[in-house]
Amino acid sequence: MPRYRLTIEYDGTGFVGWQRQDNGPSVQGALEAAVRAFCGEEVTLAAAGRTDSGVHALAQVAHVDLTNAWAPDTVRDALNAHLRPAAVAVLAAEVVDGAFHARFDAVERRYLYRILNRRSPPTLEIGRAWHVGRPLDAGAMHRAAQVLVGRHDFSTFRDAQCQAASPVKSLDTLDVRREGDLVLVEARARSFLHRQVRSMVGSLSHVGEGRWSAGDLRAALETRDRAACGVIAPACGLYLVSVAYT
Amino acid sequence: MPRYRLTIEYDGTGFVGWQRQDNGPSVQGALEAAVRAFCGEEVTLAAAGRTDSGVHALAQVAHVDLTNAWAPDTVRDALNAHLRPAAVAVLAAEVVDGAFHARFDAVERRYLYRILNRRSPPTLEIGRAWHVGRPLDAGAMHRAAQVLVGRHDFSTFRDAQCQAASPVKSLDTLDVRREGDLVLVEARARSFLHRQVRSMVGSLSHVGEGRWSAGDLRAALETRDRAACGVIAPACGLYLVSVAYT
Repeated sequence: MPRYRLTIEYDGTGFVGWQRQDNGPSVQGALEAAVRAFCGEEVTLAAAGRTDSGVHALAQVAHVDLTNAWAPDTVRDALNAHLRPAAVAVLAAEVVDGAFHARFDAVERRYLYRILNRRSPPTLEIGRAWHVGRPLDAGAMHRAAQVLVGRHDFSTFRDAQCQAASPVKSLDTLDVRREGDLVLVEARARSFLHRQVRSMVGSLSHVGEGRWSAGDLRAALETRDRAACGVIAPACGLYLVSVAYT
Repeated sequence: MPRYRLTIEYDGTGFVGWQRQDNGPSVQGALEAAVRAFCGEEVTLAAAGRTDSGVHALAQVAHVDLTNAWAPDTVRDALNAHLRPAAVAVLAAEVVDGAFHARFDAVERRYLYRILNRRSPPTLEIGRAWHVGRPLDAGAMHRAAQVLVGRHDFSTFRDAQCQAASPVKSLDTLDVRREGDLVLVEARARSFLHRQVRSMVGSLSHVGEGRWSAGDLRAALETRDRAACGVIAPACGLYLVSVAYT
């Protein structure tokens, strides 16, 4: 019973998130339905990152066991054919060792957060970026962001619904840069708490507007209190970029 | 009666094109309705490029005369407020000389055509790029494209509905390059015939697939016959990038 590793891209707009839920269409559900349509099997996909409603993925990773030894490209093409018109695509499928686990074996996750920072409202970026009309100082955001890099108790930047055993995480990088009207935030860590990236980006936006100093951001981190978090940046600006394995 | 020059961005997906028509919402119509809602005036906007249905713009240019001397930023912000939720935004408004004409004074138009070139279907690029599943050789496309640069009779690449007086145009640049899964085609000219860019890109895709040589492209140009044109690339991949004035 071969195990397949799938690399998956999706526009999260129309989904309740990665995880199958009762309240609407999920990415997991769309893929499991495509597997059923392809080969009649009832499977459960495990993914590296259980992205929230509205969050996008450029290269989510999941694994699935199938009874037959299909050629990987056949799996990819058949799932894509059955996924239409859902905004989910399998970019790659490969056979992996039966011990491979997309979630537990991941050693690094990279996220990108896109802010459209201009006075005028978005058009082509609707649902693709967070629109912030007030000017943001991306340089100040980047410098302040370094306060959050390293091993910390991230309780301030953790959603109340977070199920992680511990609020202590190691944040490897948190980089902010401007490209024209876009302010891009890249975050890299072994794993993140629920809504950690969006919470950090929301607080960084206060820094970018000049309302918070880097010291304010540090103080917010050190209170270890969710109430100290700034706004939570909306889901539409967040992209799971890649997942790394040893 | 001040004249305002407007820089306009839009997602062309939901529109019948720039020009006001009876068969659906137009970008021009959306803007003229916003002017009406803002100051009660019935105006007609003139634009540099009358983009087709589904074609996008990053910086379309139009002009409009208003009775009152509003501050330009007021015009921009008021129009944006009244445009919502249309996927049209005024990026900038400025007062210009009463002799300025957005269409007739334009000396250069730049277009970008985006091709998503990969086996898997698009998700985030739906409506933003042309999906071509067969591998394209962007280098071969770029080299062949140089056949089209210069002053030519572009009848082969001209829509039957084109109203231009002459099929002779000067194409200043036609550059093709790959960025990951995207093949990007940039075209620059004083003006273009109707559907010229999409017609050239469609024929270039035959070169990219290895079905046409650069010589075949030259022969198609030299027949001056619409029937010799390859496929016409779909509207969703085309962006009016900028307009230049003296």
